[in-house]
Amino acid sequence: MNEVYLDNSATTRVDERVAQAALSMMCEHYGNPSSLHSKGLDAELAITAARKQVAAAIGADAAEITFTSGGTEANNLAVFGTMNMGRRMGGRVIATAFEHSSVMASFAQLEKLGCEVIYIKPDGQGHISARDVIDAVDNRTVLVSTMLVNNEVGSITPVEEIARGIRFKNKDTVIHCDAVQAFGKLPIKVKRLGVDLLTVSGHKIYAPKGIGALYVRAGVRLRPLVYGGSQERGLRVGTEAAPNIAALGKAAELIDCAHAIQNSSLFSKTLLEGVAGISGIHVNSPDDALPCIVNISAVGIRSEIMMHYLEQRGIFVSSGSACAKGEKSHVLRSMGLSDDLIDSALRISFGKYNTCEDIARFITVLKQGMKDIKRHA
Amino acid sequence: MNEVYLDNSATTRVDERVAQAALSMMCEHYGNPSSLHSKGLDAELAITAARKQVAAAIGADAAEITFTSGGTEANNLAVFGTMNMGRRMGGRVIATAFEHSSVMASFAQLEKLGCEVIYIKPDGQGHISARDVIDAVDNRTVLVSTMLVNNEVGSITPVEEIARGIRFKNKDTVIHCDAVQAFGKLPIKVKRLGVDLLTVSGHKIYAPKGIGALYVRAGVRLRPLVYGGSQERGLRVGTEAAPNIAALGKAAELIDCAHAIQNSSLFSKTLLEGVAGISGIHVNSPDDALPCIVNISAVGIRSEIMMHYLEQRGIFVSSGSACAKGEKSHVLRSMGLSDDLIDSALRISFGKYNTCEDIARFITVLKQGMKDIKRHA
Repeated sequence: MNEVYLDNSATTRVDERVAQAALSMMCEHYGNPSSLHSKGLDAELAITAARKQVAAAIGADAAEITFTSGGTEANNLAVFGTMNMGRRMGGRVIATAFEHSSVMASFAQLEKLGCEVIYIKPDGQGHISARDVIDAVDNRTVLVSTMLVNNEVGSITPVEEIARGIRFKNKDTVIHCDAVQAFGKLPIKVKRLGVDLLTVSGHKIYAPKGIGALYVRAGVRLRPLVYGGSQERGLRVGTEAAPNIAALGKAAELIDCAHAIQNSSLFSKTLLEGVAGISGIHVNSPDDALPCIVNISAVGIRSEIMMHYLEQRGIFVSSGSACAKGEKSHVLRSMGLSDDLIDSALRISFGKYNTCEDIARFITVLKQGMKDIKRHA
Repeated sequence: MNEVYLDNSATTRVDERVAQAALSMMCEHYGNPSSLHSKGLDAELAITAARKQVAAAIGADAAEITFTSGGTEANNLAVFGTMNMGRRMGGRVIATAFEHSSVMASFAQLEKLGCEVIYIKPDGQGHISARDVIDAVDNRTVLVSTMLVNNEVGSITPVEEIARGIRFKNKDTVIHCDAVQAFGKLPIKVKRLGVDLLTVSGHKIYAPKGIGALYVRAGVRLRPLVYGGSQERGLRVGTEAAPNIAALGKAAELIDCAHAIQNSSLFSKTLLEGVAGISGIHVNSPDDALPCIVNISAVGIRSEIMMHYLEQRGIFVSSGSACAKGEKSHVLRSMGLSDDLIDSALRISFGKYNTCEDIARFITVLKQGMKDIKRHA
């Protein structure tokens, strides 16, 4: 049975060329980048090259890229690195109500530590109003964190407009953008977005799990999360994960947003047309979502039942974020969706290895599943 | 020119079998371990297997192993995870004066946060007196952190004796052991050592850079450093670095301490006999050091000059810890060595790929270097 992997927003299969880059650092250029001999320099040069590749992919300077162990650490570094700096704890912090769990949980900590936390709700389509965010900013606002593409429904947040409005209202507010789901799909130019901090992750763009990066705009200062050594200019110490860093660099170099969007637009269109004819299917993603993610509900059939049905037929999708691991989606809830829709939600997410046949097969099996499962219910 | 890599305490070349384990997670078992379908389960099972392998290598239960991005993060998690728990900040904390920079820097932070920090000095041979550590423990002592093998001179700390003495004096004191340099060489049994927390790292045992683990004794509770998700039982969240975790598991499985000690004892003996006849060579490692590390000084020749001379002839050693990147060794200073010895120190560290020819060649070139460099000085 051919596998149909439609869970690319949870993680992706590593590109062979990317794996090769990691492998070469493991077995050939294996020096410690901090070593003062040429084997160390050799490894350091590879990291420098990767830093340039990642920087180029988001329009940053290489010196503005700090490698982390992944998106979650980068998001934590953005949030706590900002708040622990100087006397910033306390004050107001703002996030959208459907951020990734790493931002949500960090903000929950900030609330415990005495910050005034404001969550901006999306509308029923997953749209965040720039006006809502900007209106919430006051002269005590230290940090605003907003994702660029929502990981469950694919809606795009107007980060550029938000950042412009915030700058006008309070130039000291630090603006963080979690771009994990956008990276490699939406072309990102950090200078145009106007944010101070931006998170990307490797394993959503065909690099291994365990690597991410935080863009830190030149001039923005953060407190590190861990201490010891001087790697990453002291902001992220410990022996550099050279194989994963080289892999992220290679994966960044291989990014082809135009191709990603073109392909997934076709998949998304085919999928939406296909399910339009199935009674009981409700589409939760907005029309103008990033086409790589389509969120639908098969009303009356619990997500895990349908996921299991699909999986038995070689098709892999998710019920929401992998990180939530079966908990009720806080994303769909924030959009005001009914429990019926939340409990039956499926996220289908496309990647570069998918084909039109994958989508056709998904539609066929979903249709059959709606019949089969309801018959047995 | 054949390369002679004698800097294995800085980092090691990844074992091909270990690299293969990582590769297989990247390109085959690439699911997100948190995904609820079988591709996720598949990845989760690989992590479970790796956890057992690491646990077995130190005599722990699998549930006591938390994967981190490396030794530095594990050390930070041990220190801050302990201190941030409940109302522990403040009080006395104790470390040896020659811990790895990740512990030293963490302790410097604790001092800023109001802790009373006590550093126990080694003697001139790099020996820590168990009595000195135990005597420093009082009823306000929250944490003691001591490495098992020093990373620059190879001296072995009597951790078992220290832990026993501490338990007798203050049963609430949390005991952490940085075993990064011991792991894979000295057989470690955490239950016999009697510590609460123990750090290991992958890239010193032929696994990739970017992976480590913290043993957390059942019943010991720590605060995480990062928030979001529920991976690693909430103690270390973010999508698991599955390729690196599988690699660490494989590397742990391949550990053969008896072989490592036997080999490096031979190398160490040959080296010490070889340099005994060279005038101006002083041995800084104690006689009973772990034989994998030999620290010597070529008095009158600055470390970087000799390193460069050796390197030009294909031999790689270090002047001290790679993490210190050229700073004066705090390890040798804590041992009370003179500046002459510190400035001319060389660390030679053996690994499983070394041969007797490597050692012979090192001795020959070192001898020649002593003549050549002094002639030009």
